Amino acid sequence: MKFIRYEQNGQIHHGVLEGTTIKKISGTIFGAWEETGDTVTSSDVQVLAPLEPRNIIGIGANFVGQTDDLPETLPEIPVFFFKPTSSVIGPGEDIVIPPALEEVKFESELAVIIGKEAKNVPEDSVLDYVFGYTVANDVTAPQYFHENGHWTIGKAFDTFTPLGPVIETELDPFGVNVTATLNGVEKQNSPTSLMIVPIRKMISYLSQVMTLQQGDVILTGSPLGAEFVRDGDQIECEIKEIGVLRNTFVVE
Amino acid sequence: MKFIRYEQNGQIHHGVLEGTTIKKISGTIFGAWEETGDTVTSSDVQVLAPLEPRNIIGIGANFVGQTDDLPETLPEIPVFFFKPTSSVIGPGEDIVIPPALEEVKFESELAVIIGKEAKNVPEDSVLDYVFGYTVANDVTAPQYFHENGHWTIGKAFDTFTPLGPVIETELDPFGVNVTATLNGVEKQNSPTSLMIVPIRKMISYLSQVMTLQQGDVILTGSPLGAEFVRDGDQIECEIKEIGVLRNTFVVE
Repeated sequence: MKFIRYEQNGQIHHGVLEGTTIKKISGTIFGAWEETGDTVTSSDVQVLAPLEPRNIIGIGANFVGQTDDLPETLPEIPVFFFKPTSSVIGPGEDIVIPPALEEVKFESELAVIIGKEAKNVPEDSVLDYVFGYTVANDVTAPQYFHENGHWTIGKAFDTFTPLGPVIETELDPFGVNVTATLNGVEKQNSPTSLMIVPIRKMISYLSQVMTLQQGDVILTGSPLGAEFVRDGDQIECEIKEIGVLRNTFVVE
Repeated sequence: MKFIRYEQNGQIHHGVLEGTTIKKISGTIFGAWEETGDTVTSSDVQVLAPLEPRNIIGIGANFVGQTDDLPETLPEIPVFFFKPTSSVIGPGEDIVIPPALEEVKFESELAVIIGKEAKNVPEDSVLDYVFGYTVANDVTAPQYFHENGHWTIGKAFDTFTPLGPVIETELDPFGVNVTATLNGVEKQNSPTSLMIVPIRKMISYLSQVMTLQQGDVILTGSPLGAEFVRDGDQIECEIKEIGVLRNTFVVE
């Protein structure tokens, strides 16, 4: 099932997307909801990021180029980082590059949406706590990485976390490809089997540290091939089974 | 004015603290509110963290020991980090040290609460966007700092961000001392004038990067003197004009 969030006549609504038809729902997607009977065509409304995340957690450098490159032993402490909720935008919105930024890159990712409180979750139970999946673009300005290693500022700028277009609740996360197409040319395309820290291990690890909460979003890393962009570049991050997250980079 | 948040008979309330009396209020502390006429003595209720933060932003290594040590030029990119909202606890709650952690330290800090949306704010206007101030303990487990510099995990554990006891809206942040007392012995005591990146500059800088939002909390750094703790240690983080944030470290 594909949950979508959209704006129509100044009001924010949730719905279920079937083809190009949105069936409007009332209630909360995480709990009880029902169809209102209203429908609208998705191209007639402004599609928003499919949720307002609570915390956004990313993992760094998590893909290899081919199976043979997967390490035999995993890092003791994976590179995790947080992004602020203020960085979230939806499909179709501009990714704004502040004038002081010289180098900004896209990073297409599979994003996991946590559905219920998760603490000390064993690997084989992780998927019980997942509500669904969306596509993320973890936009990054490496020139704002601190020389001592902190990525905070370089990933925190407004508009640097596009999410969407929908939350797919029935995805097999181990059977999809994460792709990015820049101005019509494919730049990223890797199956999630090329993740160094796989999804179950990543979320189980995080749940040993912090109580994951409903609405937390985990960005699971980006395939090889991310590139720097320029003013006017159009980026399409896509996971076929979820949809296309299309945005344009605009220098402020 | 001191805003306090508390639990009584299973319900969460807000109030204004005067001496030891809480005057219960209705409405939202950030907007319209009024006294309900009910009062309660603070020792008769469970005081909670004074707000549920939206984003929590910290700054690293931001104090020197004496004025002569203040650098002439400021870092081009300060060390900022985020903490997850799941790490917040209130006064009196235990700080839980997971069994895998060998070294955990307290860090007493002045925390700034943002009151309204702030983007590209010049330094001399920063205080117009501040709602008030509380005391924070930025609990830290350096053994979970990544060797490449990322502090994320080492600061993200549940219970690692005690906040409270109140939000003081009338503080002069430039005229207070940040202190910490461990088992009755003073360990930290510095005026905020020993901050390397001062509050106005810190928040102005952040607002160039991200839109600061109502309920965002900025931890402004900890004085010299933070130490590792043990099971059963009692830590009191205090700013005299705000109050005492007292917690006990407990090994899980």
